Amino acid sequence: MVSFESDYNTGAHPDVLQKLVQTNGECLPGYGTDRYCESAKAKIRKAIGMEDADIEFLAGGTQTNAVIISTMLRDFEGVVAAATGHIGAHEAGAIEYAGHKVLPLPQDKGKIMPLALEAYLDAFFADGNREHMVFPGMVYISHPTEYGTLYTKKELEELSAICRNRGIPLFMDGARLGYALASAASDLSLKDIAALCDVFYIGGTKVGALCGEAVVFTRKNRPQHFMTSVKRRGALLAKGRLLGVQFDALFTDDLYFRIGKHAVAMAEKMKKIISAKRLSFFIDSPTNQQFVILENGVLQKLSEKVALSYWEPFDERHTVVRFATGWSTSDKDLDALDAALSSVLSNQT
Amino acid sequence: MVSFESDYNTGAHPDVLQKLVQTNGECLPGYGTDRYCESAKAKIRKAIGMEDADIEFLAGGTQTNAVIISTMLRDFEGVVAAATGHIGAHEAGAIEYAGHKVLPLPQDKGKIMPLALEAYLDAFFADGNREHMVFPGMVYISHPTEYGTLYTKKELEELSAICRNRGIPLFMDGARLGYALASAASDLSLKDIAALCDVFYIGGTKVGALCGEAVVFTRKNRPQHFMTSVKRRGALLAKGRLLGVQFDALFTDDLYFRIGKHAVAMAEKMKKIISAKRLSFFIDSPTNQQFVILENGVLQKLSEKVALSYWEPFDERHTVVRFATGWSTSDKDLDALDAALSSVLSNQT
Amino acid sequence: MVSFESDYNTGAHPDVLQKLVQTNGECLPGYGTDRYCESAKAKIRKAIGMEDADIEFLAGGTQTNAVIISTMLRDFEGVVAAATGHIGAHEAGAIEYAGHKVLPLPQDKGKIMPLALEAYLDAFFADGNREHMVFPGMVYISHPTEYGTLYTKKELEELSAICRNRGIPLFMDGARLGYALASAASDLSLKDIAALCDVFYIGGTKVGALCGEAVVFTRKNRPQHFMTSVKRRGALLAKGRLLGVQFDALFTDDLYFRIGKHAVAMAEKMKKIISAKRLSFFIDSPTNQQFVILENGVLQKLSEKVALSYWEPFDERHTVVRFATGWSTSDKDLDALDAALSSVLSNQT
Amino acid sequence: MVSFESDYNTGAHPDVLQKLVQTNGECLPGYGTDRYCESAKAKIRKAIGMEDADIEFLAGGTQTNAVIISTMLRDFEGVVAAATGHIGAHEAGAIEYAGHKVLPLPQDKGKIMPLALEAYLDAFFADGNREHMVFPGMVYISHPTEYGTLYTKKELEELSAICRNRGIPLFMDGARLGYALASAASDLSLKDIAALCDVFYIGGTKVGALCGEAVVFTRKNRPQHFMTSVKRRGALLAKGRLLGVQFDALFTDDLYFRIGKHAVAMAEKMKKIISAKRLSFFIDSPTNQQFVILENGVLQKLSEKVALSYWEPFDERHTVVRFATGWSTSDKDLDALDAALSSVLSNQT
Repeated sequence: MVSFESDYNTGAHPDVLQKLVQTNGECLPGYGTDRYCESAKAKIRKAIGMEDADIEFLAGGTQTNAVIISTMLRDFEGVVAAATGHIGAHEAGAIEYAGHKVLPLPQDKGKIMPLALEAYLDAFFADGNREHMVFPGMVYISHPTEYGTLYTKKELEELSAICRNRGIPLFMDGARLGYALASAASDLSLKDIAALCDVFYIGGTKVGALCGEAVVFTRKNRPQHFMTSVKRRGALLAKGRLLGVQFDALFTDDLYFRIGKHAVAMAEKMKKIISAKRLSFFIDSPTNQQFVILENGVLQKLSEKVALSYWEPFDERHTVVRFATGWSTSDKDLDALDAALSSVLSNQT
Repeated sequence: MVSFESDYNTGAHPDVLQKLVQTNGECLPGYGTDRYCESAKAKIRKAIGMEDADIEFLAGGTQTNAVIISTMLRDFEGVVAAATGHIGAHEAGAIEYAGHKVLPLPQDKGKIMPLALEAYLDAFFADGNREHMVFPGMVYISHPTEYGTLYTKKELEELSAICRNRGIPLFMDGARLGYALASAASDLSLKDIAALCDVFYIGGTKVGALCGEAVVFTRKNRPQHFMTSVKRRGALLAKGRLLGVQFDALFTDDLYFRIGKHAVAMAEKMKKIISAKRLSFFIDSPTNQQFVILENGVLQKLSEKVALSYWEPFDERHTVVRFATGWSTSDKDLDALDAALSSVLSNQT
Repeated sequence: MVSFESDYNTGAHPDVLQKLVQTNGECLPGYGTDRYCESAKAKIRKAIGMEDADIEFLAGGTQTNAVIISTMLRDFEGVVAAATGHIGAHEAGAIEYAGHKVLPLPQDKGKIMPLALEAYLDAFFADGNREHMVFPGMVYISHPTEYGTLYTKKELEELSAICRNRGIPLFMDGARLGYALASAASDLSLKDIAALCDVFYIGGTKVGALCGEAVVFTRKNRPQHFMTSVKRRGALLAKGRLLGVQFDALFTDDLYFRIGKHAVAMAEKMKKIISAKRLSFFIDSPTNQQFVILENGVLQKLSEKVALSYWEPFDERHTVVRFATGWSTSDKDLDALDAALSSVLSNQT
Repeated sequence: MVSFESDYNTGAHPDVLQKLVQTNGECLPGYGTDRYCESAKAKIRKAIGMEDADIEFLAGGTQTNAVIISTMLRDFEGVVAAATGHIGAHEAGAIEYAGHKVLPLPQDKGKIMPLALEAYLDAFFADGNREHMVFPGMVYISHPTEYGTLYTKKELEELSAICRNRGIPLFMDGARLGYALASAASDLSLKDIAALCDVFYIGGTKVGALCGEAVVFTRKNRPQHFMTSVKRRGALLAKGRLLGVQFDALFTDDLYFRIGKHAVAMAEKMKKIISAKRLSFFIDSPTNQQFVILENGVLQKLSEKVALSYWEPFDERHTVVRFATGWSTSDKDLDALDAALSSVLSNQT
């Protein structure tokens, strides 16, 4: 059965895997102190145009969000996020497990709007009862968002300015950053992001790695004894090479960007196939995740032929589903989707 | 430079790596629900002789200890461990991060002695002030211990009986379990361990995997909604296949046991080499870790030729160091160690 | 300056204080094991009509909410509350400090509506991704709410039925319960509340005590070793008598109910005074807290004569303020308020 | 029955209670912002000879320890304490609940010896594996200790110098500080303590108050937004006046010191009575707690006549018990103890 269920349903990109095989027999120090971690960091620093950035590797997205947020917040602070933000909605309470509140803001297509953020912060700091409330100590955004949408450069500049004005770090969850960077709709480069965010990560798990996220601290703001804090959260890999080698491969010959471009190109083709069937999109996504509204009967039949992700109910008779592309998505997969949709929809009438 | 620094300094055993390569292109569901996780669980259940055991995969040792302990303890409980236990001494406070106290017991060569445990529990439950104290809610042992030593079957039976008598689960940290099972000095089989412990894990990271530990709940005692609790601790891998495939390989054709046997055999040869140099062992270890007392000048010179682990000071002029073997240790490595020792010690005089 | 700032701005009701004085010299055991704690519990059990309820005393509202919620939730659960609920908005993240998420529901005048709760729970348990989300493990309501409003008996019955149907405990924050019970608008007795809630508390701090809340577990559901869990949260008073003596006084000769009736009667008089000035109420509250919309210039001048609480902005030119009555509010205070309002409003024109 | 069970078994000292009565009707702002809190702080600042100290009030000892330690430690740090320290042994894991490890040091009569501390810190910071361990981030001492013993000025100076040399704050738990200051055996004044400690508290609960501890930050080191952190730990009293008024009374006309002197004088008389019976002291305590070894049969009979505290087993036939004096201990009480001891011991033969 062809699958568009997610971008983490196949293994690693072959070039990443090959590097793991090539380096497997080498004897290397543990805990991320090996030469591949160093090499990967150097390559990432070059790619982001920031020679003094501190870079650290972690294994997965929820883990990275929890580690970053909980090591950077102060005791009395919480993290501001869109109501649909991954940390608030789909991480099983990992931020709260670490003791901190996620402060939800209204969202627009998965994004925090600068005006909404400014209004929230103004109101908070004007509130005479604020000492009884959770202080906003970080702003979390995801790019692409959970709905595949993108911040514009202008929006990110405004969010960044608001945050810096208040002395609050801006944190970008880039679990799928490769697909944002590759989108024709995006005017934000990796260098822009590094310049505008205080901390962000370059997601590997969903962009061609077996696991791994590269965290970038852009302002000499890596928490002290970060490795100890990572260990105490159970997030330190003994064989840290597993992450270093993979990111070294991903940042060799622009592999990370090529994976992004491939998946987004596949998604664009998929959009045409879906549009041609006169199906409706729930949201206009320019990245590798496409959200489509299906009649429940169609969904049921399609599920027998195509693996996809249930997203949320649309109305009593329709459901929003997600189709995702990734490094392994092929034209053949798209043909199979086309055929499956045709078959299910023709039976429909 | 030849390395005996640890058992996690090379990559995966070639058979494990090969299976990752073979299965890489397959499209599989995420979060540990794939067929390789299922297959690995079935093979482990067979190996432990317990068809209804619940098995879960996690990425590393500290993570596994923290997840197991914090999901199984009740609010008012802590975990009893030897003063030298990994959770108390070398996990950067991961158990306390999860809100629970490690209750230290005196240790004998890294082990908790049944009499000491019983005395402690008797005193605790007789203490009229116990409601102001942390209740012992689990007993943690490591096998092999942090000093490479082993529990005997009789000791484990006694610890198990004491725990069951009190209704307190017995948890075995088996980060290096393969080396215990392979030791000629051990009279404990995997089936014995499954029968006597309430929960234990079969370590992969240090026994041939890139990462991964297989947790076994032996008494229908897996915490409810365990996957959600794992996720909220940042420990759920999207590509759960990474763990399933590796354990499937480790439990195919007895690979896990063969790795153990190889490393222990290499350690036995190493002991002979070291003994022949009239060096002293800090402790008599029958597994893959050997603890040797070196004069500080010898240590300094040897470090230039052999990678090893600093362990602890012995006295003002001597230091305890660790030599570890693993799946990749070869006769050639041992010859190099022999030569290095000879060279350094002959210069010594 | 006359004060309506809150219901915790004077000391204890004289009868409560007198009992503290009378019993001061007695030598009593610590930690809540004294005879006054026992006597208070017996009186409360009688008042709620539940002879086998478990009752415990804690010092303040936020503490009580955090202790109850965190000892009753399981690891993977959060607590459902109205978006305006005290635990979500004004307790500085105390629930998150304890590791749990507050799951906000839309509110109607500070209340959770049964239909909204049912829809939320239905959607959650139908969601195929729920293992990645925080499970609803308790429903929190406040009565009166943060806006002084009250649940009807029918609403509470419906909420209770929904919760019991799902096996989720219903928890009522009764920090100001005395004012709910005393309101003519309420059709809910203390016995009804005990029968319908799984756990609730009878607030003392804001109803005539110096400090203290009486927690009632109505279904043999007091967490095991509760005293130990209380101590580990820093909430166990050595001189537990301080709480027992006060509640013993509050439940002697219906003092708790008399305080409630007095304050609500004063609030009703106050409403007439305010209405007579043609000022607008933000919400129709039948209890001791009244929320009034003031033009900002009026607010500024009035603040020089009357202590009141800033609540929230209404619009650019108006602010919502709170006037609260309590055991010590007198007719003289109301006359002073009347005069102050007249003076400020006449100058206004 | 006469009681020496503890120093928290009677209510407040009459002068403290009287001040609560006198001020009860006053209308005061909440949360510790009232004039009595201010007045008490001013009086304490004068008593400690430090005009710019930051002072905060909390309700009880375990709460205070947990709040101070958890707001002052950084993420990767734990707190060093004697193995017998209250935070490690008898606070039900409150420090671990806050996420931090108590690092136990060997103790000498309840005290940390400067040499032992220095050796521990030297070893920690020399350990190449320290990034995998809990960093010592604070040193906790209690004065008097849990065994009633006292640090000398020289010892405190040395501990302070070691801590300052390492940049680690020294925290003194002064739950019973009044009895230390009053002891003829002590050469440490309140001013010395303020000068040598980075943070300490002046215990009220066990020295004449109903509840309350006054925390003193001596080095402009009060954590930011401390009130918010206190609230999020459930430790902020709405009627903060309860603490302010009591400490205002305790620091008026040297009441705090007079209570200490009275109780210590009573303890000295008690020691003579006990010595005259040829009973053995477990430890030589110069403060208000006396630890006596009783034969178990004597203990059982004495318990019928005198309330005392079971402390710990001494050997199979003897038990260590504690007799404590306090503000309310009278000569009559001592006479009753004398008579009870005589009666029990004469029957013994």
